[in-house]
Amino acid sequence: MKIQQITKNDIQQIIEARKQRQSEDLTLIDKRVQNIVERIKQMGEKAVYQYVEEFDQVKLDSIFVSEEEINDALDSLDQGMKDILNEAKANIERYHKLQKEKSWYTQEQPGTWLGQQVTPIERVGVYVPGGKAAYPSTVLMNVIPAKVAGVRDIIVTTPVGKGGAVHPMTIAAAKMAGATQILKVGGAHGIATLAYGTENFKSVHKITGPGNIYVARAKKYVFGDVGIDMIAGPSEVCILADDTGTPSYVAADLIAQAEHDELASAILVTDSHQLANQVQDEVYRQMEERKRKEILQHSILNQSAIYVTSDLETGFDLVNDLAPEHLELLLTNPFEQLSRVKHAGAIFLGEFSPEPLGDYWAGPNHTLPTNGTAKFSSPLGVYDFMKKSSVIYYDQSALIEAESKISRFADEEGLDGHAASIRKRFE
Amino acid sequence: MKIQQITKNDIQQIIEARKQRQSEDLTLIDKRVQNIVERIKQMGEKAVYQYVEEFDQVKLDSIFVSEEEINDALDSLDQGMKDILNEAKANIERYHKLQKEKSWYTQEQPGTWLGQQVTPIERVGVYVPGGKAAYPSTVLMNVIPAKVAGVRDIIVTTPVGKGGAVHPMTIAAAKMAGATQILKVGGAHGIATLAYGTENFKSVHKITGPGNIYVARAKKYVFGDVGIDMIAGPSEVCILADDTGTPSYVAADLIAQAEHDELASAILVTDSHQLANQVQDEVYRQMEERKRKEILQHSILNQSAIYVTSDLETGFDLVNDLAPEHLELLLTNPFEQLSRVKHAGAIFLGEFSPEPLGDYWAGPNHTLPTNGTAKFSSPLGVYDFMKKSSVIYYDQSALIEAESKISRFADEEGLDGHAASIRKRFE
Repeated sequence: MKIQQITKNDIQQIIEARKQRQSEDLTLIDKRVQNIVERIKQMGEKAVYQYVEEFDQVKLDSIFVSEEEINDALDSLDQGMKDILNEAKANIERYHKLQKEKSWYTQEQPGTWLGQQVTPIERVGVYVPGGKAAYPSTVLMNVIPAKVAGVRDIIVTTPVGKGGAVHPMTIAAAKMAGATQILKVGGAHGIATLAYGTENFKSVHKITGPGNIYVARAKKYVFGDVGIDMIAGPSEVCILADDTGTPSYVAADLIAQAEHDELASAILVTDSHQLANQVQDEVYRQMEERKRKEILQHSILNQSAIYVTSDLETGFDLVNDLAPEHLELLLTNPFEQLSRVKHAGAIFLGEFSPEPLGDYWAGPNHTLPTNGTAKFSSPLGVYDFMKKSSVIYYDQSALIEAESKISRFADEEGLDGHAASIRKRFE
Repeated sequence: MKIQQITKNDIQQIIEARKQRQSEDLTLIDKRVQNIVERIKQMGEKAVYQYVEEFDQVKLDSIFVSEEEINDALDSLDQGMKDILNEAKANIERYHKLQKEKSWYTQEQPGTWLGQQVTPIERVGVYVPGGKAAYPSTVLMNVIPAKVAGVRDIIVTTPVGKGGAVHPMTIAAAKMAGATQILKVGGAHGIATLAYGTENFKSVHKITGPGNIYVARAKKYVFGDVGIDMIAGPSEVCILADDTGTPSYVAADLIAQAEHDELASAILVTDSHQLANQVQDEVYRQMEERKRKEILQHSILNQSAIYVTSDLETGFDLVNDLAPEHLELLLTNPFEQLSRVKHAGAIFLGEFSPEPLGDYWAGPNHTLPTNGTAKFSSPLGVYDFMKKSSVIYYDQSALIEAESKISRFADEEGLDGHAASIRKRFE
């Protein structure tokens, strides 16, 4: 894990280099994704079965998880884990309920009534990665905000394991969180199934949830026909620490992020040379104790870095240009520094708020904008599962007052039919 | 304009037929868009000049509208139109200020502090169609919400006319609304310039605004690297009227929508045979009086329809399945019926709230989801120009209380580094 001393002038180059790191040629992947999606659009469920057989080596009888499988999954869960899922659910629900917007109206101008009506999306698909491992936290973080929003149909889809079964933990979490149906279709074919439906499955209006590069590109491909949450890249953390940072905590948090996969990235920004050196040592020491040591070899050595700045101001400049998915502020007074953060997915304050607290427990969503996209997008939230309609009412006198002005405006744009629609009321 | 009597059972088929109407093979367009965008990414401003010359037949000296051009444009505006733009601006501002979200925090659990920090996007690009005509209303509807959000840099881009100049009305509206820079680059090359920048122009973080099919596909192509508002299709209105509807108003409003372009669509849904027949007559009569008669021949005859239902309930079912961009409720008690609307971009209540009132004047945004996408998306708003960051703080005792539960959860997902990051605090 390299330590690099930097100044303000180096920031631009660091950002550029990190962009390069992410760019790969997607032409071939996009072509394959397009074929899969278009084939399912045309052939329906037959094509879905074929792709599941091709990619997951399983011959399915049904694309749906059965009631029996759901009951078995719930039964197989030990009470300890059930309690943990329920407490996490309560925390996530409590936070997300605060995001729920109300419809409103205003009557500020005489004779007018303007409003914004907020309604849930009716039918939503949630993609959950699977196969070997289970990600119940992904299930909770996607299904609960949809439930809080009031979404009627919440369909989880996830790849089947080798035996044709979905991991019981995924099923149990989906059921506990409020999913209404579970599909056994992963990959780009899972996204196509959600977006366009089959003979036995009605298409959804929006798709959320993370996945591999095929899932991400399939989401981009179907975007427009359905809504999507975001196109997520590899996970990342940035820790901004001063000399009060505890080296072993910082190292543990960098490793926690880097263990996700080879492309995950963990960055420490600090104005303390001493902390930088101590963290470097600690990272190498702690890596040895970790199960996912081989992944860490890649992500820590190739994707991660320690940047030492002359002052905190330069540190904040770098952080804001990175716009990291996760940002830990391990500073003397983190609350006082919060307003200096301009772009980040989630911000963790102080040394007892490590990033995994947000992944599983605290309540805010763990689905966050990656790779600098926090400059223009937000964590997944209840707002992603609702939509707005404007409401406009003018009475006769209010429209009379505006008539000539609207007509002139419309004529200016060459749309005399627009002007006529107003004038017609007063002929 | 065909009149069709329908029942609930016909709705599915009507929706399917309308979907077909919109689907065209985009492979060729996408290929050309990809070439344009990638070439500008690689070659920068030189490629931009080449595309402007190729597509707009203009040799530009600079891609920027100059201070002199801005002053000339403002001087050229007559006082009447200046007042109209300023009053429209005030109406739009007043409504959009009500959309502005505040940051918040909560301390519901002991020892915890959770929040949602809301901040403006820093740099936004607004695409405005141009060339022959000017669309000052598009300028206002995109720039004002960005300004209300607190966006620092708002860059308008629009195609140049034959002489190398941008329409003075577009420039004046941009300046009055608060744009900070104006570019002379239209089409897919305009979107590429905004998304990736050039030697002299820094890329933006998000792009909004309508355009032709090349602009729409270019927006989809760059989505992910930058944010976009939506991919807009042809404009459309749906009018739901009972026998109290005034035929001449209904006809005028259908025509106002249909005059946009050949693909625009205007639909009347009513439970009154008499109204259906009277509107049909009126449409043919009024069409003759309109300047854009030739466009109306296509849009009214090919894209539009009158559906007669046996009752209002069936009417609402059709409306909700259409999820129209614009919906007029010309009913006896429109306010009482509002809650029956599940999906629509904007809803206009009663006979003195014709759709053009929303295009130019009332205040709510006229950039709305088309082609059924109101099932999952919203009007353009201040929320499109801001983003959220989650904030998480736990003190030591709160983290101790959660330690074993988070660790178990992380272990369950096979991420022992996540568990270690929590445990490390208490070793």
